[in-house]
Amino acid sequence: MGAPYSSSLLVRYRLTLGDGDSGETRALRLASEQTSELTPDLVPASAQPFLGRVLGVESTEPGVTIATIALPAEAARGDLAQLLVLLFGNASLQPGVRVESVEWPADSLARFAGPAFGLAGLRELAGVRERRALLCGAAKPLGLSSAELADRVGALARGGADLIKDDHGISDPPCSPFAERVARCQEAVSQANQATGGSALYVPNLAGPAAGLVGRIERLLQIGCRAALVAPLALGLETVREIAGSSGLALLAHPALAGAFFAPDHGIAPEILLGDLFRMAGCDGVIYPHEGGRFPFPAARSAALTEHLRGPLGRLRPAFPVPAGGIAAERVPDLLQELGSDTIFLIGSALYDEPDLERATGKVAAFLREARR
Amino acid sequence: MGAPYSSSLLVRYRLTLGDGDSGETRALRLASEQTSELTPDLVPASAQPFLGRVLGVESTEPGVTIATIALPAEAARGDLAQLLVLLFGNASLQPGVRVESVEWPADSLARFAGPAFGLAGLRELAGVRERRALLCGAAKPLGLSSAELADRVGALARGGADLIKDDHGISDPPCSPFAERVARCQEAVSQANQATGGSALYVPNLAGPAAGLVGRIERLLQIGCRAALVAPLALGLETVREIAGSSGLALLAHPALAGAFFAPDHGIAPEILLGDLFRMAGCDGVIYPHEGGRFPFPAARSAALTEHLRGPLGRLRPAFPVPAGGIAAERVPDLLQELGSDTIFLIGSALYDEPDLERATGKVAAFLREARR
Repeated sequence: MGAPYSSSLLVRYRLTLGDGDSGETRALRLASEQTSELTPDLVPASAQPFLGRVLGVESTEPGVTIATIALPAEAARGDLAQLLVLLFGNASLQPGVRVESVEWPADSLARFAGPAFGLAGLRELAGVRERRALLCGAAKPLGLSSAELADRVGALARGGADLIKDDHGISDPPCSPFAERVARCQEAVSQANQATGGSALYVPNLAGPAAGLVGRIERLLQIGCRAALVAPLALGLETVREIAGSSGLALLAHPALAGAFFAPDHGIAPEILLGDLFRMAGCDGVIYPHEGGRFPFPAARSAALTEHLRGPLGRLRPAFPVPAGGIAAERVPDLLQELGSDTIFLIGSALYDEPDLERATGKVAAFLREARR
Repeated sequence: MGAPYSSSLLVRYRLTLGDGDSGETRALRLASEQTSELTPDLVPASAQPFLGRVLGVESTEPGVTIATIALPAEAARGDLAQLLVLLFGNASLQPGVRVESVEWPADSLARFAGPAFGLAGLRELAGVRERRALLCGAAKPLGLSSAELADRVGALARGGADLIKDDHGISDPPCSPFAERVARCQEAVSQANQATGGSALYVPNLAGPAAGLVGRIERLLQIGCRAALVAPLALGLETVREIAGSSGLALLAHPALAGAFFAPDHGIAPEILLGDLFRMAGCDGVIYPHEGGRFPFPAARSAALTEHLRGPLGRLRPAFPVPAGGIAAERVPDLLQELGSDTIFLIGSALYDEPDLERATGKVAAFLREARR
């Protein structure tokens, strides 16, 4: 029986039991739901190797069962979207199922190239030779013209931001159409770099209708962009993986829609979804809402996510955690202590809350440059 | 102030209030989170037309506020994934936010072609001239060889299923690789059709790495397939829209991952996600877990979803509701009364629970043919 399971995902699911539910029964039902979609007695012998298998159940608190289930990684092969479906596709429609942890088999991980740049490559793109944390600013708000956004991008670059990303809500609105906006903003960053001698990177939001995606990537490359912002749960994990693998652009991932998966008793642990899966999709940095900002994201999750982005994962390059979501500039010293220098601090709205955007950026940038270890 | 809002989404959000939250404050914060990502006082005058606007708040039960918010549809233009992000992207990361209803502006709806076939077109593809409900069977389980699956597909077709879909977990596993499987199953359906004089449609699962998507579609067209199964939340709404608009294949949508959005106090109402959005993506039929099966999906949601799939939505063609998720064959008469003849009944595992698959299929198929009105 060993052979098929040499390439299994080992998934720990947290199951919230309803009245009269048995943990064992729920686990067995989940294992078949995610694979055969038949009760096990209807699965022919020839299909048994692909049937999910319950390796153990344990009760850690009343009404909750932790089930360890082996799922056939080969069912998804090198298709990351199908791997997500294998983990949680129909499970999402059952009540109280949460993916707590996943052990990825080596041959499954080997199918995914992961970040094309990673920590070292993205540092190099942004011209940061010393080992210090990076600062990312944001072009905002939606509704400004391309020229107005470019002014702000220029100020952020002159102030010393290493990266300047578009807000993820700015894609191709009539007030700042994609082609015009990215050209103006890229130009603003180039001019700022010439003035400062820096290498700030503009990170435009890459979204828009599927049919135009290749054309938009070509446009970015033509004007000299080296990075882009993507929302993997909107675009699809496989679309992002394709962009990461073939475009030559470094990718920052935005967590839009991810909160749907973060209920305490239903969904996918953030370090699996934003950590392992986004990294397997080839994201070089992953934006997430750090605790203490506008979004309720507990410290324990941040710590696990950071570990999953930077720690070992097959032979995949490590990716930057990009704490965000309403981080005040005053918090950066403490956060740097907590998160270390392999971090990109995304300070968006806080920099606009001061009278001079360039100056506000300069203060944080100077701190990070001086704090390098 | 009227002009920008001539093209607004009017969204009713259900907000669950935390201790000390005010409904008005939560609504204002959500409106700016989904657009400017800045506190309203930091939004320049030129960007105000794109700032979400709270049109009203009402309290329907203690601790809950219903906020009606106008969002600038033009921010997403014809990009369905970006429209989903506009509705719920960052909102997903706030606690207790549920999209209850959306009024789509006519010019926004007009950007989406919707189902290429719709009710009438899919009926025609399946050779069903009379106005009766359709029967869909499922090729399963994952783990069988292509030949074994083709045997089952043939039995379902001979039994009188109008459509036979792959399980959504069967994509390109080593035991039944995509190209081999779809060729065998399509051949089995063709042979069955020749024997019965019928026009059953094989609906293969279209998934797999993004880079090979065009090739897989070409393969399906070459072997004579006219329809495919897609999982829009795995592939991405825009990828599905592109397939619907350009491939010539009719699309059945699978709800994999959708349950992440269906918490009672957080997410998106199923009739918006599986109804409006999947229909705008061009799905001709949408599979959903009907109540009374393996998944907890209340009747009220089924009724609303059915209405959103078949009722008026701009000029988009209506789509089939495809109730599924463990429907027993004995329930079909009652469900037909409830749902009417513009329905595809997906009876998957229940048909395998009987000794003879073809015969079991035949019983349900005969009932639907005789019950036509």
